[in-house]
Amino acid sequence: MNQQNCLVAQSGGPTTAINSSLAGVINGVMNSDQFDTCYGAINGVLGILNENYLDLSAVMSDPDNLERLKMTPAMYLGSCRHKLPDYRDDDSSYVFIFNQFAKLNIGAFFYIGGNDSMDTVLKLSSYAKEIHSDIRIIGIPKTIDNDLCVIDHTPGFGSAAKYIASTMLEVAHDTFIYAVKSVTIVEIMGRDSGWLTASSALARNSYNTAPHFIYLPEVPFSKEQFLADIRGKLKTHNNVIVAVSEGIRDKNGDYITASKSSSDQFGHQQLSGAGKALEFLVKENIDVKVRSVEINILQRCAAHLASQTDLDESFTLGSKAVTLAEKGVTASMVTLERTSNSPYTVTYSHAPIHGIANEAKVIPREWINEAGNDIEPALYEYLKPLIQGEVPIPYADGVPSYMPVTHLKPRS
Amino acid sequence: MNQQNCLVAQSGGPTTAINSSLAGVINGVMNSDQFDTCYGAINGVLGILNENYLDLSAVMSDPDNLERLKMTPAMYLGSCRHKLPDYRDDDSSYVFIFNQFAKLNIGAFFYIGGNDSMDTVLKLSSYAKEIHSDIRIIGIPKTIDNDLCVIDHTPGFGSAAKYIASTMLEVAHDTFIYAVKSVTIVEIMGRDSGWLTASSALARNSYNTAPHFIYLPEVPFSKEQFLADIRGKLKTHNNVIVAVSEGIRDKNGDYITASKSSSDQFGHQQLSGAGKALEFLVKENIDVKVRSVEINILQRCAAHLASQTDLDESFTLGSKAVTLAEKGVTASMVTLERTSNSPYTVTYSHAPIHGIANEAKVIPREWINEAGNDIEPALYEYLKPLIQGEVPIPYADGVPSYMPVTHLKPRS
Repeated sequence: MNQQNCLVAQSGGPTTAINSSLAGVINGVMNSDQFDTCYGAINGVLGILNENYLDLSAVMSDPDNLERLKMTPAMYLGSCRHKLPDYRDDDSSYVFIFNQFAKLNIGAFFYIGGNDSMDTVLKLSSYAKEIHSDIRIIGIPKTIDNDLCVIDHTPGFGSAAKYIASTMLEVAHDTFIYAVKSVTIVEIMGRDSGWLTASSALARNSYNTAPHFIYLPEVPFSKEQFLADIRGKLKTHNNVIVAVSEGIRDKNGDYITASKSSSDQFGHQQLSGAGKALEFLVKENIDVKVRSVEINILQRCAAHLASQTDLDESFTLGSKAVTLAEKGVTASMVTLERTSNSPYTVTYSHAPIHGIANEAKVIPREWINEAGNDIEPALYEYLKPLIQGEVPIPYADGVPSYMPVTHLKPRS
Repeated sequence: MNQQNCLVAQSGGPTTAINSSLAGVINGVMNSDQFDTCYGAINGVLGILNENYLDLSAVMSDPDNLERLKMTPAMYLGSCRHKLPDYRDDDSSYVFIFNQFAKLNIGAFFYIGGNDSMDTVLKLSSYAKEIHSDIRIIGIPKTIDNDLCVIDHTPGFGSAAKYIASTMLEVAHDTFIYAVKSVTIVEIMGRDSGWLTASSALARNSYNTAPHFIYLPEVPFSKEQFLADIRGKLKTHNNVIVAVSEGIRDKNGDYITASKSSSDQFGHQQLSGAGKALEFLVKENIDVKVRSVEINILQRCAAHLASQTDLDESFTLGSKAVTLAEKGVTASMVTLERTSNSPYTVTYSHAPIHGIANEAKVIPREWINEAGNDIEPALYEYLKPLIQGEVPIPYADGVPSYMPVTHLKPRS
């Protein structure tokens, strides 16, 4: 029989591992007896709706390109934040998408993304079942937030965690040089879950006890407790360093941020995050030098400090997705399970997409200390294996040499 | 005759190269026939005033420690921001310091730092001359700002520039993934000079034209021109990326920042920087997704992305300082001069400390384009050699393995 092709796309926010999963898919298709060409849709499902494709089998026929793709941050195929309607309300885009599948002779569609992307996988799977299509639809997880259910940890998280831990250690070196007392607040991503902020604890070593406090979205934030924590630590430490999640909320569930109503010299509204809010809190209540640092998007795109463990697992998940599709598996997401923590080992599997989409995983309360201002050793042990291994990023002219994304050229 | 000892200290703000200069000094003293022990004063001149010393010859007798020290960010000896009075007004601290020199049998004092530190070198040199002391006092430059006179470029600058260029490229990858139009503003350090901000241009390559605009303190900032620049670029580019120096000012010399008078939910004053101010400007005037990123202190402490060229030159400058002291040179700062740009070569020399201290170097206007929103190729060529070479940072448990700074332990 004439071989079918595969289509892959990426969606949601960037991570440094999502292209490694893409490389895994491409490699899997290249080595498949069942599948022929691997096409990529540009900007997620929008690429299908716009008939904007890339022949990945051709571009990646050079093994060097595939290797470089693994180490390249963000999304080689571009992304989108397009939410498909319920096909029972409006099936027009579904009809169009499956016509595209037919036109390209697609046997399997792989969607690499986070919660929203898994929702797309769920919807496309349901529609495929409805119309009795045998096209296999498989989700490949990624998110720096590590908030996907079913899977032990998410691709992309380990690399972000490694960047955060390394940066926290460097901030500590930067802070320890002055004998004058100071407070440094480092704001880390994580709106609803504190996994990334907790990873800053991996910066602790024989001489560095920073971060001295870790505040997570999982625990209601108390202004009074925070100030008491800082005052207490300043009695024994010159330079107190705090890791805080952007998503901390008070007991009423309100985010701890600077005012929405304040305005700048041009009269514009502004909103500062949790880090700035805590900086002001210290400034107003404790007579000490204080500064806040927002790591911002660097933590999700700094591929030059990616975790080899993370990239390897992401690649394998991509390959596994192809193998599953060959076996006829559909309406599923590839997963990995931790079978041992030391030595660290994982096994790969898959789970039905139902029950995965639109559900978020937060840090279990027992992995956070009773005071709610630090993590428990169990969480430290969970995190530690995920940041192991450095990636041999190639450099050209002093900067990382990533896979060119010329095809994402401005289209205006 | 019984050999004399050396004393070294560090001062001012951190860089990732200042410990490489320290390693150079220690190595120079270790290999000297004239000098015996190399002592370090903890927290700059304050270490002398507090009689707080470290026997560096002992600590660094293990060559592995010296290698690790080279790659360790910030200041191994700690820092201070202590400005000595004019000895003609009050010579008490000078008397104390030179008594310490006598007590430790110091033949040469090396001070590694920026403008303020060179001011200390100048004052101690003048006092030494006044009291006919033969102690050699030599300054070793460092500052990420690259604003020291006499020297072609400053140790620490190249590493910060490499981090900024690499981060800008990764931010570009992060930004290019969406087909929707957006503006991303990256705020970079540099209060009075734009050298660091200009270095973001080194992120440009065959597929990346970002940063699309570069705004520097050397050119008066016009709100109208800025908005016109952005509007124009958005016609042909989906994702416009701007590099802006924290020090940009309007034609009246006022800093472009968010209001000092605005306040947050706790009623505290707040001040956002140039990046936020430009973010609000775009938000209010152009209907497009906009975000600002402040690289903050990461650009001066991220040793994991240091420039090998920078660390090598910093180390050599430290060694040269010892050689000069052996020859009886004093009241000077070691310098380097660029003898060729391709191939890149430098020669090392020294200059009298008079005329160096308290003078700042800014970007020549001819190295900035006429519109004042980008740099000229000449500046690009000046910057490029300084970020070359990657440093083989050792890692332990997934994070960089730096030289422990246990001696900077909290002293409360």
